[in-house]
Amino acid sequence: MRAVDLIRKKRDGQALTPEEIAFLIRGYTRGEIPDYQMAAFLMATVWRGMTPEETLALTTEMVRSGRTLDLSHLPEAKVDKHSTGGVGDKTSLVLTPIVAAAGVRVPMISGRGLAHTGGTLDKLESIPGFRVQLPLETIRHLVERVGAVLVGQSEEIVPADRKLYALRDVTATVECIPLIVASIMSKKIAEGIDALVLDVKVGKGAFMKTEAEARDLAERLVDVGRRLGKRVRALLTDMSQPLGRAIGNALEVIESLETLKGRGPEDLRALSLELAAHMLLMGDRAGDLEDARRTAERLLQSGAAVEKFRQIIEAQGGDPRVVDDYARLPQARFRWDYVAETEGVVIEAHAERLGLATMLLGAGRETLHSPLDHAVGLIVHKKVGERVARGEALCTLWYNDPERLGRALEQVRAAFVLGDSAPPSDPLIKAVL
Amino acid sequence: MRAVDLIRKKRDGQALTPEEIAFLIRGYTRGEIPDYQMAAFLMATVWRGMTPEETLALTTEMVRSGRTLDLSHLPEAKVDKHSTGGVGDKTSLVLTPIVAAAGVRVPMISGRGLAHTGGTLDKLESIPGFRVQLPLETIRHLVERVGAVLVGQSEEIVPADRKLYALRDVTATVECIPLIVASIMSKKIAEGIDALVLDVKVGKGAFMKTEAEARDLAERLVDVGRRLGKRVRALLTDMSQPLGRAIGNALEVIESLETLKGRGPEDLRALSLELAAHMLLMGDRAGDLEDARRTAERLLQSGAAVEKFRQIIEAQGGDPRVVDDYARLPQARFRWDYVAETEGVVIEAHAERLGLATMLLGAGRETLHSPLDHAVGLIVHKKVGERVARGEALCTLWYNDPERLGRALEQVRAAFVLGDSAPPSDPLIKAVL
Repeated sequence: MRAVDLIRKKRDGQALTPEEIAFLIRGYTRGEIPDYQMAAFLMATVWRGMTPEETLALTTEMVRSGRTLDLSHLPEAKVDKHSTGGVGDKTSLVLTPIVAAAGVRVPMISGRGLAHTGGTLDKLESIPGFRVQLPLETIRHLVERVGAVLVGQSEEIVPADRKLYALRDVTATVECIPLIVASIMSKKIAEGIDALVLDVKVGKGAFMKTEAEARDLAERLVDVGRRLGKRVRALLTDMSQPLGRAIGNALEVIESLETLKGRGPEDLRALSLELAAHMLLMGDRAGDLEDARRTAERLLQSGAAVEKFRQIIEAQGGDPRVVDDYARLPQARFRWDYVAETEGVVIEAHAERLGLATMLLGAGRETLHSPLDHAVGLIVHKKVGERVARGEALCTLWYNDPERLGRALEQVRAAFVLGDSAPPSDPLIKAVL
Repeated sequence: MRAVDLIRKKRDGQALTPEEIAFLIRGYTRGEIPDYQMAAFLMATVWRGMTPEETLALTTEMVRSGRTLDLSHLPEAKVDKHSTGGVGDKTSLVLTPIVAAAGVRVPMISGRGLAHTGGTLDKLESIPGFRVQLPLETIRHLVERVGAVLVGQSEEIVPADRKLYALRDVTATVECIPLIVASIMSKKIAEGIDALVLDVKVGKGAFMKTEAEARDLAERLVDVGRRLGKRVRALLTDMSQPLGRAIGNALEVIESLETLKGRGPEDLRALSLELAAHMLLMGDRAGDLEDARRTAERLLQSGAAVEKFRQIIEAQGGDPRVVDDYARLPQARFRWDYVAETEGVVIEAHAERLGLATMLLGAGRETLHSPLDHAVGLIVHKKVGERVARGEALCTLWYNDPERLGRALEQVRAAFVLGDSAPPSDPLIKAVL
């Protein structure tokens, strides 16, 4: 078998066999197939796509490229949640302690911020001492002892994905459904889970701008997961405006804690509880979805969830006192209120622009290894449908570097659109697959 | 400017500006843009194609990647011919001395055999001592002194093409019209020519199997050449059966010499004279094409052409005595007559299969640097339309390694198709553009 022949086969629109995909992924992981051949194959795949069978084979081979987390000795269900990325999306921080408090095991491997979207790991690292890079043995131990872990991808898990992702990033081959599906699902399968809830974001702040694209991605993710014997459910949820009111790492941790204490914004609370309910149902902690919703709600109200989050923080080396004392989190030196020049009703609070504004303040990485500022971000005071008076603040920017303020404000200004009356409200959850 | 953005632009079907193409080619030639980014760009180009303006910019930048032959001090026209490759195609060896004998300068840079087709350089190297790799200064000197040179691409000329071609070969991005056009034309432009005759082969032994494909390639080659201020003419010529009767390096040198002596096969003689006539016309050595044809014919019959070939051989270090003594060329030890099992008329002598048979005997390279056998090959005794008796030889295989004979014979058997009567004859020259 020769790599060039497999590139040609894909280029000409033919489907590869599982053996051919295994040859490519094994050879590439071992360094026997060079980057330039894989780059040509990836571009041919962007062009020609992959059949469900090819996507499955790719996912399977990527899992085989490294070690996997073996949690089979634990009798409880192992369930995870994955979001395709949004602005202000901090549901992982809220639902993980809820679900773990119910006795479901949550071995959650998350990512960093990408483009205008935030990343769970960046948010958690705003908690002093919190460690997200842990060896596989420690991850396993924490799942046993605490019931949940919130970590980054270790070197040992799916090395093929690390290598492929770095290559895709510099060869304009990121935007390709089967490659996205294999990247997401290989990491989730390697976690040793029984079930997975997918939160596929759709709208102006999501990578999938239309419901059709999001549904296509969701269906392919669900397909691969089910073919691999996992229980999988996907929710298509709105990402036209930010989720909750806080955007930026430490600000999002505070909002998550507030939500765990029953004081969070309604949309964040509702989506976190709904995703948690699906996890509880698939984790055999409820007879039906209604029952699961009641359980999630009860664990939030009883304080069990916030206590579980405190345990998770402590177990991963973080300062658990942040739960009660937000002053222990990084704080930005300056604030700027962006005020409405006229009165009106917010008809758009463009999620991508608000996410980008936050990145411009320093909340995201400019290059792969550049540092980020955990303190900066923004708080949205007026969301879609809310009325604002002339001179009233639409949002507040928290910043440290005055030189970064101007470009962020430009994005904020372009993000808000006011009108005379509220637009028809869009459901937060658009579909469940 | 970033390479990844240009890859994305091409991937999304947009045309690149000349500045963007210059950035890519300069960066790649200098090693600043890595192979993997160029591989992704090449595959995106196979997918999306290039506009005539992009193809022109690519050609121009490839020329600029290296040195060029400056022949502007010579008052005579500088004219070259390029063939897209065929089986038994040895017209370069016949027409170069004819045209040079008329006083036109011919700075011909040729290639090696590719796939089932032979290469001019491989053929010439069957002449003992003949050197095809010469420094630019020597090439220039030989064009001045002898009037013609038959050499390979030097390291100094179009280094971008050498690098790109090696990459295309291993990434399944060879078959792409704009990349083929830029590769061919950049090398020809770098020769410092005024005019170019293109012999675009079409049929079972050519890379372009249909007349539509060949015409498309021809039009794009002509377009780029003319935009760069060159006189360019393209002939679409038949390559369904081999040209002439000899296939294989030394055997083709012999047939070329026989043709220069007026004893060659009719199709080879006719095509060589026609291509030479176009070169003479564009090189201002004739008033019209009829006049040019008469001049070419006269130079062949007078012996001036064969004398010019003797000079070329001597000037490039070859043994000029081969012109009169073919025994000085490599000779295969064994011969095998492939005979007809029934009587009939040849209705097909499949050029690609006969070319492949010759390669299987050892006439071509298996990998880039493997040695080849200059002596082996085959002589076709019966071409399309010729009658064969039962037991009469259709062709003779000349070979050194008996272990290679079997597979070659299989190809030969599949190449010949006999029928009851001659098929309608196909014109050798299908079109002139």
